[in-house]
Amino acid sequence: MYKLVLLRHGESVWNKENRFTGWTDVGLTDKGEIEAREAGRLLNREGYRFDVAFTSVLKRANKTLYVALEQLNLMWIPIRPTWRLNERHYGALQGLNKAQTAQKFGEEQVLVWRRSYDTPPPALEEDDPRLDRKNPRYAEVPDAEFPRTECLKDTVARVIPFWDAEIAPQIKAGKNVLIVAHGNSLRALIKYLDNVSEQDILGLNIPTAQPLVYELDENLKPTRHYYLGDQEAIRAAIDAVANQSRAVPQRQRPPIPETEEPQSAEQRAPWME
Amino acid sequence: MYKLVLLRHGESVWNKENRFTGWTDVGLTDKGEIEAREAGRLLNREGYRFDVAFTSVLKRANKTLYVALEQLNLMWIPIRPTWRLNERHYGALQGLNKAQTAQKFGEEQVLVWRRSYDTPPPALEEDDPRLDRKNPRYAEVPDAEFPRTECLKDTVARVIPFWDAEIAPQIKAGKNVLIVAHGNSLRALIKYLDNVSEQDILGLNIPTAQPLVYELDENLKPTRHYYLGDQEAIRAAIDAVANQSRAVPQRQRPPIPETEEPQSAEQRAPWME
Repeated sequence: MYKLVLLRHGESVWNKENRFTGWTDVGLTDKGEIEAREAGRLLNREGYRFDVAFTSVLKRANKTLYVALEQLNLMWIPIRPTWRLNERHYGALQGLNKAQTAQKFGEEQVLVWRRSYDTPPPALEEDDPRLDRKNPRYAEVPDAEFPRTECLKDTVARVIPFWDAEIAPQIKAGKNVLIVAHGNSLRALIKYLDNVSEQDILGLNIPTAQPLVYELDENLKPTRHYYLGDQEAIRAAIDAVANQSRAVPQRQRPPIPETEEPQSAEQRAPWME
Repeated sequence: MYKLVLLRHGESVWNKENRFTGWTDVGLTDKGEIEAREAGRLLNREGYRFDVAFTSVLKRANKTLYVALEQLNLMWIPIRPTWRLNERHYGALQGLNKAQTAQKFGEEQVLVWRRSYDTPPPALEEDDPRLDRKNPRYAEVPDAEFPRTECLKDTVARVIPFWDAEIAPQIKAGKNVLIVAHGNSLRALIKYLDNVSEQDILGLNIPTAQPLVYELDENLKPTRHYYLGDQEAIRAAIDAVANQSRAVPQRQRPPIPETEEPQSAEQRAPWME
């Protein structure tokens, strides 16, 4: 009935530096830009066309979108950015790397923040320069909703109203929609679309810059989803124990919650190389 | 009261090849991309900020916008492309170079098309592959309004309704607006804003990728306008006979109508080098 394409941004500078990013506005690495170009080329080769694009207000997603649209020869479509598609806000962890974080808060505590659906990391203080409340890109954020930290549950709570109000009506109007966003805002959306449990959603990993196609019925319920691209590489990356009948596109068992910092080389799945 | 910035796209491939472009969707040259980057940097240095960008559905304008927004660190603003900001449709001349055109139609006739406000070049035939009527980017164009050729008067007639309906309300709502478009769609807008005569507008040259700032009063009547950048170079380029008290930003006398093909090196003003 309908098709929707989700795309996580390419590698960012802080992905590479192994730091919690959240709402910090870091750019793509050269590799990230190449990934974005490849994603655009792939979509183009496969004949995908879009009428409108939604994205966050963070440059790593915006640039990924620009680069992909150029490859698609679709720079003429409207672009609607929104803070509601931003990455999960990582609170006081933003800017720290994993080693620093473990040092500062203890390894066990860090695991709770990474694995829990509803326990946010410590909030940024009101006067923390990282809060960025006055940035014009956040002029649309209601004061009471401006996050100082978020758990995934909070991210879901701000993504879904935007889906309902702005994205779903476009899809129902027959528009082909592309969403270029972040690991956790896309996870939030997938949780909602596929009705994934709070536990399972934390085990869902979305690779960078790999177009994820959702086919939706007339009520926007998913009937099928798949990654475009080298299916062998993608299949190889899915853990052998993965229960493929589940709604979740990719799964590793036991669930390793994906935070928005990169996994170590050993943990990293082949498609993330 | 309000500020509005107009930007003509950087050098395109067909500018360079000396061909009539019109609605043909050609990309920027490397030089054009550099020009776009310089324009973005200049706006950034001068402290310009925008809330929304309007552009045509032609890639030379879209790419100029993308590149400039990246330099401004403003990739997070919404982009609203519209066919109504496209370059003047050049009819059956599209794709021809000046030499070919003079050969085919005679030099005198070509001068009429270039210098007349209301005489369009020959129209494309319905079955001409250059017509591009089925292109999805033109899905919004009412069938009766789809141009097969245009004189500047026709371009004015399709640009101004969009200004009134979409751009003016945003400016009045306090939004800082950037418009990235083409020599003739910008000329159409300037004719309307500054109430330029049909004769004078044809003598108005808008250099590529030079930000043109309009200051507007509460009724959106211009109170002042100026190009950003090296004022000396810009001033030097204005013909000594130019009547600087006129509303038109840049003028050469006797009026040399600017078509969207590049002028010869001798005619070209220093800022276009």
